[in-house]
Amino acid sequence: MSHTDVIISECGPRDGLQSISQVMATADKLRWIDALYAAGLREIEVTSFVPAKLLPQMADAAEVVRHARTLPGLKVLGLVPNLRGAEAAIAAGVHVLTIPVSASEAHSLANVRKTPAEMVEEVKRIVALRDAQAPEIGIEANISTAFGCTLQGVVPEDDVIRLASQLTEAGANETGLSDTVGYANPAQVTRLFTRAFAEIGSKTGAAHMHNTRGLGIANCLAAYEAGVRTFDSSLCGLGGCPYAPGASGNVVTEDLVFMFEAMGLSTGIDLARLIAAREAVIAGLPGVEVYGMTAEAGLPKGFEQAHHG
Amino acid sequence: MSHTDVIISECGPRDGLQSISQVMATADKLRWIDALYAAGLREIEVTSFVPAKLLPQMADAAEVVRHARTLPGLKVLGLVPNLRGAEAAIAAGVHVLTIPVSASEAHSLANVRKTPAEMVEEVKRIVALRDAQAPEIGIEANISTAFGCTLQGVVPEDDVIRLASQLTEAGANETGLSDTVGYANPAQVTRLFTRAFAEIGSKTGAAHMHNTRGLGIANCLAAYEAGVRTFDSSLCGLGGCPYAPGASGNVVTEDLVFMFEAMGLSTGIDLARLIAAREAVIAGLPGVEVYGMTAEAGLPKGFEQAHHG
Repeated sequence: MSHTDVIISECGPRDGLQSISQVMATADKLRWIDALYAAGLREIEVTSFVPAKLLPQMADAAEVVRHARTLPGLKVLGLVPNLRGAEAAIAAGVHVLTIPVSASEAHSLANVRKTPAEMVEEVKRIVALRDAQAPEIGIEANISTAFGCTLQGVVPEDDVIRLASQLTEAGANETGLSDTVGYANPAQVTRLFTRAFAEIGSKTGAAHMHNTRGLGIANCLAAYEAGVRTFDSSLCGLGGCPYAPGASGNVVTEDLVFMFEAMGLSTGIDLARLIAAREAVIAGLPGVEVYGMTAEAGLPKGFEQAHHG
Repeated sequence: MSHTDVIISECGPRDGLQSISQVMATADKLRWIDALYAAGLREIEVTSFVPAKLLPQMADAAEVVRHARTLPGLKVLGLVPNLRGAEAAIAAGVHVLTIPVSASEAHSLANVRKTPAEMVEEVKRIVALRDAQAPEIGIEANISTAFGCTLQGVVPEDDVIRLASQLTEAGANETGLSDTVGYANPAQVTRLFTRAFAEIGSKTGAAHMHNTRGLGIANCLAAYEAGVRTFDSSLCGLGGCPYAPGASGNVVTEDLVFMFEAMGLSTGIDLARLIAAREAVIAGLPGVEVYGMTAEAGLPKGFEQAHHG
């Protein structure tokens, strides 16, 4: 991958679609991924390896991965909630397995019917499978509800940091922190990522922020200042969590890229092409609600992007 | 005024209304101001002293000020673009005159038909009037287009800082920086406010941010970190600039208060009452577009506000 100051990890085709009842046609998904790639995205979570009866939106997971792998230099991520998903994802050829592990027991049980401790054991099994079958594949754990939970309310910070430590010991190459339900504030983001870096160092992974209460971009800024360099976001702000009521709205990729580029930090992404890529979402998901202030307002007069590495 | 960590200066009744063609009935404005006051706001820019033929929305400026002054402890701000406006505002009884001075010559000419240098002279005349007639009244200059201009494009930072210095020398008690058209990014906010504090010290005034490209709250966070403690914002995110095309959307007061309170910083504002106050806007401006993610999503489960001072 070319050098950039920050990595934008697009999660729309996974996190965006899973919260929408509409099923997007496979051909439309591929056009969307191609448009993201053309804009410069080099890390995309393209799908989720879950039973098709639970999420019919993801029934074409293997086909989507197969296509994404044809795009040179693209890091192809696939979400796996368990060992069975990991087997399918490895067979399909993802470069990175992403595993959500909730810090909230209530959310974990609702989402995957396992406690956080049971999920750590599942991660160990996935790591063993990866080590045996495909040691080149990366494993990124993401701690869901790290900043609070619509079911449990407050999630103690000690629980989150302990879980990050356990996931690292279990063999995750990186562990990120996710504000699954949009409860985070910048002070909390600073505290938790600072503690994560102290606990697991460079194995601290992405900031995955939602804009549910309008603080998504500010929380990304706080995470950047705390040392985070990978950010999950979603074109058009698609996304949410099917098991967390009211949790709509991933951070909008366009607005996040605008912020970083305006700050002089290179993302490797061409903003005009990124905004053009929205058409693929709008065409593939007719009538879906899309977000994004930068796309609506247009780029500032005289705006110039940092040179790409 | 009771002690708070940050001051939220509501500008909806001025900045919000001036960009809407709809004329709000005076009684509805007073209910809106009362609802803001009931939520804990203690600084409100209630109107603009401009010719009624230019902005019929503000024809009732004196009456609105008269009512606002009856609310104990409320600091009543009124915008004045020139000496004539200042005469009317002083006669009406505002506590603070706010004077917009654009750093962009093109914007300044379009907005008030004066160059920035001519506006500095106008500020001197207003200061002399204030000193002669009502020395207890404060004068706050706000540098419009401090972060860029839809007409001129880039606005050199040196121009902004020089203007801040000139306005301070002209006698403004405070000078704030306004992102009139939503071009600012956090790095630029940090740079400019840091330079402003170095140049004019504690006479550095409010951060007035717009959310036109989704960065409004992140820019407020950057301004807070640079030392700013007063923030302009607008209930329901009403607002914009009539002479800056596409410049919609003041920072949403509800989301900004949510951020600060969630960070443990007291604003003196009760969030539940603030969200309830939206009804006054919605009832008084039927069909107007309102913004605000926190109001839509609701407060987090178990959320507790900091104690008010």
